[in-house]
Amino acid sequence: MKTYKKADFPVANVRRFLEPGPVVLVSSAHKGQRNIMTMGWHMVMMQEPSLVGCFLWDQNDSYEMVRRSKECVINVPTVDLVRAVIGIGNSHGSEVDKFEQFGLTAVEATKVGAPLIAECYASFECKLVDTSAVKRFSLFVFEVVKAHVATSPRYPTTVHYRGDGVFMVSGRNVSYRRLFKPENL
Amino acid sequence: MKTYKKADFPVANVRRFLEPGPVVLVSSAHKGQRNIMTMGWHMVMMQEPSLVGCFLWDQNDSYEMVRRSKECVINVPTVDLVRAVIGIGNSHGSEVDKFEQFGLTAVEATKVGAPLIAECYASFECKLVDTSAVKRFSLFVFEVVKAHVATSPRYPTTVHYRGDGVFMVSGRNVSYRRLFKPENL
Repeated sequence: MKTYKKADFPVANVRRFLEPGPVVLVSSAHKGQRNIMTMGWHMVMMQEPSLVGCFLWDQNDSYEMVRRSKECVINVPTVDLVRAVIGIGNSHGSEVDKFEQFGLTAVEATKVGAPLIAECYASFECKLVDTSAVKRFSLFVFEVVKAHVATSPRYPTTVHYRGDGVFMVSGRNVSYRRLFKPENL
Repeated sequence: MKTYKKADFPVANVRRFLEPGPVVLVSSAHKGQRNIMTMGWHMVMMQEPSLVGCFLWDQNDSYEMVRRSKECVINVPTVDLVRAVIGIGNSHGSEVDKFEQFGLTAVEATKVGAPLIAECYASFECKLVDTSAVKRFSLFVFEVVKAHVATSPRYPTTVHYRGDGVFMVSGRNVSYRRLFKPENL
């Protein structure tokens, strides 16, 4: 499968890829094990520091791995990976290595122990910074501490889950910059 | 502007329109005043009950209106409303009525005092159910108590904000239902 050549990217700007709402792949590692989960429930919560809130289901194997390692990588897959996205979502149980099973390449991260996924358009290394809403809402708050983004194309073609097996595929990107008050951009 | 004919929709399924990550318009009302804000930071948090987390900036006039009335309506605009979406985002100050200013039609809701926006594809009546993360993260958790969704087209063409004045417009919708384990749909 295709891998993307990536460059460092300002962590305060990761909203460009997360705020549109794509399904993401969350990779994690703990004590020699690694895992990937498919996740659609996330939101940008702050730009500086760069905070992202994620719902992690407590029945998912990644839940404990993220909770214990206090780290993860949020990877943004493109539409060519949709079968892996669904397959990973279907997989429960940590007995299989999902990188091998789905033909994905683990790349060492810089600031966290969890691996980057080379086939994804962007990878955001995250530290768990707040768990105060985990019990009530399974909401983990991460700080993006390092961002890797493909140098081309300018924007990824992402998949956005509607439930019931239906994905919306991202369409065209249009700048309305001239209509914005500069302080609202 | 075009209005949509809407029908009741199961509140547990509003994820179909929110999980893909569109920019939404939040309408609110309190003590004879009404307001609209543009919002891009939101996430589905649960299906039953139907919970949605929203970041409301404390400098926005809607913040106090929602906090005091404990209600709002989350409306999903389509791409034909992009100029209103930007204009409302540019507006600070509650001295103007945004319905009048942007040519939008307020429709009475069933279960909340905040108005629906007739020109939006879908409108979700919401009650504020949790404020425990408001101080730390400006995160309001709402329960969708009533949903109104357009009867046609099947899916809306929505706008998704990338920052810096750029919107991604939603593209095609594809069913991969056959690849899912039934319990994961």
